[in-house]
Amino acid sequence: MAAAPVWSVDPRTGKRREQVAVEATADEVDTAVRAAHAARGALADRGARAALLRRAADLLDEAGATVIEAADAETALGPGRLTGELGRTTYQLRTFADLVDQGGFLDVRIDRPDPGLTPPRPDLRRYRIPLGPVAVYSASNFPLAFSVPGGDTASALAAGCPVVVKAHPDHPATSELCAALLRRAASDTGLPAGLLNLVHGFQAGIDLIRHPLIAAAGFTGSVRGGRALHDEAAARPHPIPFHGELGSLNPVVITEAAAEERAEQIGAGLAASMTLGVGQFCVKPGLVLVPRGEGGDRLLTSLTAAVSDTESGVLLDDRMRDAFLDGVRTRAALPDVEAPVTPGAGGEHTVSPGFLTVPAARLAADGPHDLLLQECFGPVTVLVRYADETEIGAVLARLPGNLTATLQLGEAEGAGADDGGRGARLLAEVTPLAGRVVVNGWPTGVAVAPAQHHGGPYPATTSTATSVGGTAVERWLRPVVYQDAPPALLPPELREDNPLGLPRRIDGRPEEA
Amino acid sequence: MAAAPVWSVDPRTGKRREQVAVEATADEVDTAVRAAHAARGALADRGARAALLRRAADLLDEAGATVIEAADAETALGPGRLTGELGRTTYQLRTFADLVDQGGFLDVRIDRPDPGLTPPRPDLRRYRIPLGPVAVYSASNFPLAFSVPGGDTASALAAGCPVVVKAHPDHPATSELCAALLRRAASDTGLPAGLLNLVHGFQAGIDLIRHPLIAAAGFTGSVRGGRALHDEAAARPHPIPFHGELGSLNPVVITEAAAEERAEQIGAGLAASMTLGVGQFCVKPGLVLVPRGEGGDRLLTSLTAAVSDTESGVLLDDRMRDAFLDGVRTRAALPDVEAPVTPGAGGEHTVSPGFLTVPAARLAADGPHDLLLQECFGPVTVLVRYADETEIGAVLARLPGNLTATLQLGEAEGAGADDGGRGARLLAEVTPLAGRVVVNGWPTGVAVAPAQHHGGPYPATTSTATSVGGTAVERWLRPVVYQDAPPALLPPELREDNPLGLPRRIDGRPEEA
Repeated sequence: MAAAPVWSVDPRTGKRREQVAVEATADEVDTAVRAAHAARGALADRGARAALLRRAADLLDEAGATVIEAADAETALGPGRLTGELGRTTYQLRTFADLVDQGGFLDVRIDRPDPGLTPPRPDLRRYRIPLGPVAVYSASNFPLAFSVPGGDTASALAAGCPVVVKAHPDHPATSELCAALLRRAASDTGLPAGLLNLVHGFQAGIDLIRHPLIAAAGFTGSVRGGRALHDEAAARPHPIPFHGELGSLNPVVITEAAAEERAEQIGAGLAASMTLGVGQFCVKPGLVLVPRGEGGDRLLTSLTAAVSDTESGVLLDDRMRDAFLDGVRTRAALPDVEAPVTPGAGGEHTVSPGFLTVPAARLAADGPHDLLLQECFGPVTVLVRYADETEIGAVLARLPGNLTATLQLGEAEGAGADDGGRGARLLAEVTPLAGRVVVNGWPTGVAVAPAQHHGGPYPATTSTATSVGGTAVERWLRPVVYQDAPPALLPPELREDNPLGLPRRIDGRPEEA
Repeated sequence: MAAAPVWSVDPRTGKRREQVAVEATADEVDTAVRAAHAARGALADRGARAALLRRAADLLDEAGATVIEAADAETALGPGRLTGELGRTTYQLRTFADLVDQGGFLDVRIDRPDPGLTPPRPDLRRYRIPLGPVAVYSASNFPLAFSVPGGDTASALAAGCPVVVKAHPDHPATSELCAALLRRAASDTGLPAGLLNLVHGFQAGIDLIRHPLIAAAGFTGSVRGGRALHDEAAARPHPIPFHGELGSLNPVVITEAAAEERAEQIGAGLAASMTLGVGQFCVKPGLVLVPRGEGGDRLLTSLTAAVSDTESGVLLDDRMRDAFLDGVRTRAALPDVEAPVTPGAGGEHTVSPGFLTVPAARLAADGPHDLLLQECFGPVTVLVRYADETEIGAVLARLPGNLTATLQLGEAEGAGADDGGRGARLLAEVTPLAGRVVVNGWPTGVAVAPAQHHGGPYPATTSTATSVGGTAVERWLRPVVYQDAPPALLPPELREDNPLGLPRRIDGRPEEA
């Protein structure tokens, strides 16, 4: 049987651009995983890892024009957005290099021996070691920052884990280009190219998660695909950690006071956030609780104007476009659902943004309107009109887990100066629903920062970990403790004299610097 | 259908002592989980949690004689061992109370806003919040320290998570007694008794892991039972973290130099470690690499004498006794396996310790001797006689994951002063196999300490977490980050002025105290 070709497709025309590769056979997946496994020893040196990440960032910057052109041709995301995404990607690589230098994620903990305890306490020295080869399933909607050179790859390499990336079929040429740059960064820094491997094909993705030498996996994509891979990871003879980001509604609650004070600003802000990148963000606000009454009506007017003014855009592929149009149609056909701006087919390969409205009562109990509680990928959002705080609570109680939850509060509510303490109450109410809670802002735009948390209750993520920010590296490590190991044999990270200057905890307390 | 009775059984006679309870129906499991869920708000206060844990420790100490008598009657572990285990249990409860006071596990991280970055960085404030009700599956072999008042319960309560314990059928009366004490500790400290619930019965354990309000689970037990529950946790509509400790061989490598220098001491130490608690420890050394030649022979002589001198003991139940005798018989019947001291039936309800030997070559490739690579619960160990370091490597390469790995090194090897650097090389070789590496000691005796790590690659544990030591609490938490939340609405843990005096990271760096 001939190998299945992998095509790069122009979403603006739906036409094939070029054949990029062929789908990997089971043998080729095995070869890729074995190359990764063989490279793990070379990644043990933290200095080499930091140099690798910095060199990768430099090479991506140098090839920036080519990378952006390749990504735009396959994704239609546009040079502006992709320039920003490339900057995010190289910033992320350099940030992880800094973290590797600092070594805080090694989480060095030393308990000194205490013969006076019953039983006597031995000398215990613990740090975190890499898990082994990591499978990365890249996302459609970020061809750089959540793809081959993205956060999963960067954090895995930072942890010391070689990577096998399953390329997303929406940007195979960009994936090959970035993989070549990462492999060149490896050889430039004296490391084996096998630390980064790329495979294409649906079956290759399944073969990859089943491979006995794969030690963990990261995934960004749909609930359906992510759940299938999660189940594969759990069903292995030797189960492995599966860090998947699957889907999120990203609810927004707009209080009556906020609507009254800032209806126009909130309407414009919501329009910008939900249509950004043609609505193809995992943190797109997909369900918005808007008060009935005059403030909410003004907000709707503002949103209507702003969304109507937003141009049509090209989705990442035709399958997504079909799913978007079908999803909108089915939702709009539900009783009591209205479409002040109907999202729809803008042109042969584009879609136009829009939004739906529904009364809160329709979501208070099981029924066909539950469809509105599922993510609809693309430039559409659902406004839920509520009468009072009880209705807010009833809707929130029915939501699945989310990456984000957002509050738009009135000035007095934000200052804790309203009669009812509504701000603090709503903050407490949405916290169990999400991993990030945004106040008086919008969830789109996930800052790459040390304290960032990009994750949330299922189906937002399949673990309690984050895929963005400094602690993302922790996903690829496990602790090991040495008991009474002679000083001469200890790795330098655990030596008493701390030759690497690492942050440590001694007997449970942070050591003074 | 009448409710199935739950009996307390005396393992010394195999006779029923009393009916303790009945197996929980699905409705009763639901009631228990709902009680736990309703109690979660009361556990939000860290001061109350610390007081609860300390009160529980005090009540267990006060009732010590009764608790030990109850546990001994059901487990035959003996008052000496159980007195130590009760001390470990109350120490653990008090240690977690101290950790709750310190609040380090909240992992507070604050990134200050930076409008100069592209894109501008918002104000981000992150800490960890409790996951929700935790299911605890208690162990047979620690009726206190890994059961109702044990580490899983203590760490979950410390995290702010209410608990539903599935009692182990080998000590239902002890479980009821300890549950009553924990519930009294709750009412003594003004907390709802529903924070600790107990259910009995095999089906109740399955109903529990499937309950939609259960947010995570901890388990200590067999590979078969733990894997079944792991698979249930992963197959839920909303999968949950499952922290299971399933099984471990705990390999020991004794170098030629060590055997030559300390044959008698090592033989006696191994005998004591493998027969401790009638071999019923998850960290029992189950596979020991011993050199051929004179040093190894002397070690065998010493081990033979010490094991022969060890009295027979009562296993936790007759099913385990049958499994032990059957497991030993099957292993001893393999070609080239010898039994210098034959483990076997000591009396009608006891077993006598022993050990087997096998040449390393028998374990170098797949075959019937793979049975020797599976844990055999009880007072038996397998000595693997090796000719050289290549044979050590070949055997280690075939081992599954372990809680511990142990090295016995010669003096020069430990000092890094031997010709070949063997000590460091072996340390590196066993590190991927285990979560704790012990040098010149024995794996039994798991210190409760801040840096302890009790976990390891599958099947040792099903996650990368620990079930003993300070960081065990992290299993029951997830991060949440607040973006641009107004100061007035922030929880006190995240306020700029740090009113609770918590350890924090600011912009990625530990804050100076």
